Amino acid sequence: MADPIRRLVAELARLPGIGEKTATRLAFHLIRGNRQQVTDLAQALLDVTDKIRLCSICMNMTEADPCPMCTDGRRDPETICVVASPSDLIAIDRGGHFRGRYHVLHGLLSPLEGIGPDDLRIAELVRRLGGDPPVREVIIATSPSVDGEATAMYIARTLKPLGLTVSRIATGLPVGGELEYSDQATIARALAGRATL
Amino acid sequence: MADPIRRLVAELARLPGIGEKTATRLAFHLIRGNRQQVTDLAQALLDVTDKIRLCSICMNMTEADPCPMCTDGRRDPETICVVASPSDLIAIDRGGHFRGRYHVLHGLLSPLEGIGPDDLRIAELVRRLGGDPPVREVIIATSPSVDGEATAMYIARTLKPLGLTVSRIATGLPVGGELEYSDQATIARALAGRATL
Repeated sequence: MADPIRRLVAELARLPGIGEKTATRLAFHLIRGNRQQVTDLAQALLDVTDKIRLCSICMNMTEADPCPMCTDGRRDPETICVVASPSDLIAIDRGGHFRGRYHVLHGLLSPLEGIGPDDLRIAELVRRLGGDPPVREVIIATSPSVDGEATAMYIARTLKPLGLTVSRIATGLPVGGELEYSDQATIARALAGRATL
Repeated sequence: MADPIRRLVAELARLPGIGEKTATRLAFHLIRGNRQQVTDLAQALLDVTDKIRLCSICMNMTEADPCPMCTDGRRDPETICVVASPSDLIAIDRGGHFRGRYHVLHGLLSPLEGIGPDDLRIAELVRRLGGDPPVREVIIATSPSVDGEATAMYIARTLKPLGLTVSRIATGLPVGGELEYSDQATIARALAGRATL
């Protein structure tokens, strides 16, 4: 294999979920395809490294600082939704049901992986709360996993003394989910979180 | 999502087997990761478009023309193994059992997809045969698929009148394969291709 091809395969194989075989297939696809597609991809890669930084307010990835969401006057500045990652933010915002601001933690607490509170953007969250207008509610929207729950608990304990409402997204059966095929933990949480009709 | 990220996701999603979700995951992985990895990947992409061309003899992808295989004096120039693609060439050469030269067709005949003989590098193969020293044997190593078989038949018919040996790689049970779980077509071919012991 020619050296430039070998290098491209090696670089592609460093991506998560892409092994050497897939990398080889992708490389040959790119080489066979039109040059424009390859240079477009290369340019897109260079652009993200050049142009993307963290918003100094919400810590989301952005081209402009502060990001468009933090400067959007139609978004309620008194409610902040805390998420683990930019992709979680996108997942929530896609629905259009939340019209407040966000805060990206860039990870979850994980004692097993040695990730503590100082590795997340929690200090930046606390710093935002005293702004003007003051934040009224923080909704913690981390996943209902072990790490997500631990992170939610930690943030709740940190923020509660500050006298604002700290809430947690609901855990329960997904819409369209079948009770019959749901796991016991989800059913237990759905029961515990039942609402009066 | 910031524009540069959106563009990177779109470019990644154009790759075969990579949907929008995987593209988003890859993009965020790249942005989160170290900048060096991203620029290395971009550079590797630009390098293949800049430096890779087809060898004017064997049609394999190469940085130098003629390619290292065509100029390797230890490789028998009288035997040519015909393959559909550069990745098939790599698959065969990895084994080290073939020490002749190669010829890459860059595709297979496929009437359904409108791919005819002129779309493959068959004329270039015919042109090579009268060289010095003359080619003694052409081994057709296309896959035993419908298109692969059709391509092999076509090339055999084209080359036979030129008075050289045209052979075809064997079809049969794979090494370690279980007769019990083999498909009928493979078993039929293994029987038809039986060799006297």
